[in-house]
Amino acid sequence: MMTNDAAPRERTAEFFRQLQDEICGALETLDGQQPFREDVWERTENGGGGGRSRVMTEGAVFEKAGVNVSAVTGTRLPPSIIAQRPQAEGHPYFATGISLVLHPWNPHVPTVHMNCRYFEAGPVWWFGGGSDLTPYYPVVADVVHFHRTLKAACDAHDPAFYPRFKSWCDEYFFIKHRHEPRGVGGIFFDYLDGEVGSFEALFAFTQATGRAFLDAYLPIAKRRQDTAYSDAQRRFQLIRRGRYVEFNLVYDRGTVFGLQTGGRVESILMSLPALVRWEYDWKPDPNTPEAELVAKFLLPPRDWAALEPDAPS
Amino acid sequence: MMTNDAAPRERTAEFFRQLQDEICGALETLDGQQPFREDVWERTENGGGGGRSRVMTEGAVFEKAGVNVSAVTGTRLPPSIIAQRPQAEGHPYFATGISLVLHPWNPHVPTVHMNCRYFEAGPVWWFGGGSDLTPYYPVVADVVHFHRTLKAACDAHDPAFYPRFKSWCDEYFFIKHRHEPRGVGGIFFDYLDGEVGSFEALFAFTQATGRAFLDAYLPIAKRRQDTAYSDAQRRFQLIRRGRYVEFNLVYDRGTVFGLQTGGRVESILMSLPALVRWEYDWKPDPNTPEAELVAKFLLPPRDWAALEPDAPS
Repeated sequence: MMTNDAAPRERTAEFFRQLQDEICGALETLDGQQPFREDVWERTENGGGGGRSRVMTEGAVFEKAGVNVSAVTGTRLPPSIIAQRPQAEGHPYFATGISLVLHPWNPHVPTVHMNCRYFEAGPVWWFGGGSDLTPYYPVVADVVHFHRTLKAACDAHDPAFYPRFKSWCDEYFFIKHRHEPRGVGGIFFDYLDGEVGSFEALFAFTQATGRAFLDAYLPIAKRRQDTAYSDAQRRFQLIRRGRYVEFNLVYDRGTVFGLQTGGRVESILMSLPALVRWEYDWKPDPNTPEAELVAKFLLPPRDWAALEPDAPS
Repeated sequence: MMTNDAAPRERTAEFFRQLQDEICGALETLDGQQPFREDVWERTENGGGGGRSRVMTEGAVFEKAGVNVSAVTGTRLPPSIIAQRPQAEGHPYFATGISLVLHPWNPHVPTVHMNCRYFEAGPVWWFGGGSDLTPYYPVVADVVHFHRTLKAACDAHDPAFYPRFKSWCDEYFFIKHRHEPRGVGGIFFDYLDGEVGSFEALFAFTQATGRAFLDAYLPIAKRRQDTAYSDAQRRFQLIRRGRYVEFNLVYDRGTVFGLQTGGRVESILMSLPALVRWEYDWKPDPNTPEAELVAKFLLPPRDWAALEPDAPS
């Protein structure tokens, strides 16, 4: 364990590595079939540092699951970040984080994403992170559980955080060209710096949201992993995964940052599903579960944490 | 038929519609199983105009084939285009074009793309276009044929065009984060305006490149469509298609322009393959045809038109 005397860079990077161990251990237990494969990599171009990518392929529960940590340095942040933090201009940067995306086989088990990150550049530092759920055949109780778990983690630090970061998530994980959110949301936060709280307070908050992930997601996966599904449901999942790819390649900050800064491509694109379909002008039949996904769960964004778990959809 | 007295907007748009008819007719004959489904659409938000999208789904030869024409107006061009043509700033624009991407079932038949377009904005107008081939199991004679056909179409207008537009294609259809071209290239040109030639000369050139498409591609598809293939070859095709998606969503000007200007999403994303795989850190075994695709055909770009069709790879 690092003490509080260690530098923020080491403490944050060490926490992300520990969290990766915890999460991968729990996911291996849940899957029960496949271990994670680990690749330790070093960054030799465009900066220094490296990372530890862990991927599970074709497990019992997970078709593809990636949990990545990295801690890298570089000479300049990309323009998209400088636009948000002009004080970072002209300074080398340090960035460390954990990022995971899980793609289960079963369309009744939602896809999920979690990320926490810490940046330093010259006079500025900040935390970012979040977690969001992308179900195909959602169940109200699951969505309520996911949001309530994240809300509890936020509330312990600041009751203003969950409402703010829940809305930010709805705005951020929005596929503009589809006029549609990526999923049922969760929380998203970025550029949390000295204006918002001390390093200690924001680090503690970021740790809490990262640690809340397993509590938020595992019960859902356990409840739904044995639900039977049809070929048509699997096909619907593959089509919806296309939206996931569209979001990640067109809009996602982490993906764009990684590709712009010459990051390790296989670790960045680990988030893409194993198998994806694009069918021209696909539309669900009216009044089917496939139509209700968008009409009842995705749009408009709802205050899931305030709902009763047994509320009708 | 339009006469030369008609306005450039009408003449270009009419040509693209005629070309769509010719190409779709020839592709239906080749496929022999599925007709194109046509969707005529109007743009009611962000500007006016509309288009005619034609898609073939699960034919005998083509798993997915999209041939789209559109002629749209809008109040302002996106910043990426204004950066190239600052004189267009503050002017409404007109854009018309044809765009096609064909995804065959058989991995021995290459994926292919062709596009021609015409823009007007205030004091400026220009043509753009091109065609490029993305084989999975390339054959030298096919690649030579494709390039020679495009070269002949270019040479009839200006012998300087093919070398210039061939190199531009190699630069443009390059997947930066993979350090790899999308395929074996072809031609690409953009912003061909009054500095390069008259409207009549450049319109004639653009027509010639568009008309060359069928001659360039059909003989290849005919020669390879009955070649037997294995599950492993199909899997390789699906993995390579992932690169195609990465290029289109991250880098392609047409896709980004369409999504940025509120275009019809289903027509823009018609270019994406029906089925795609992303496998973490996939690498071909050494000395296999899968390894040779990149090592012998993609990198470095070669002067295919100068090669003999029976040259060894």
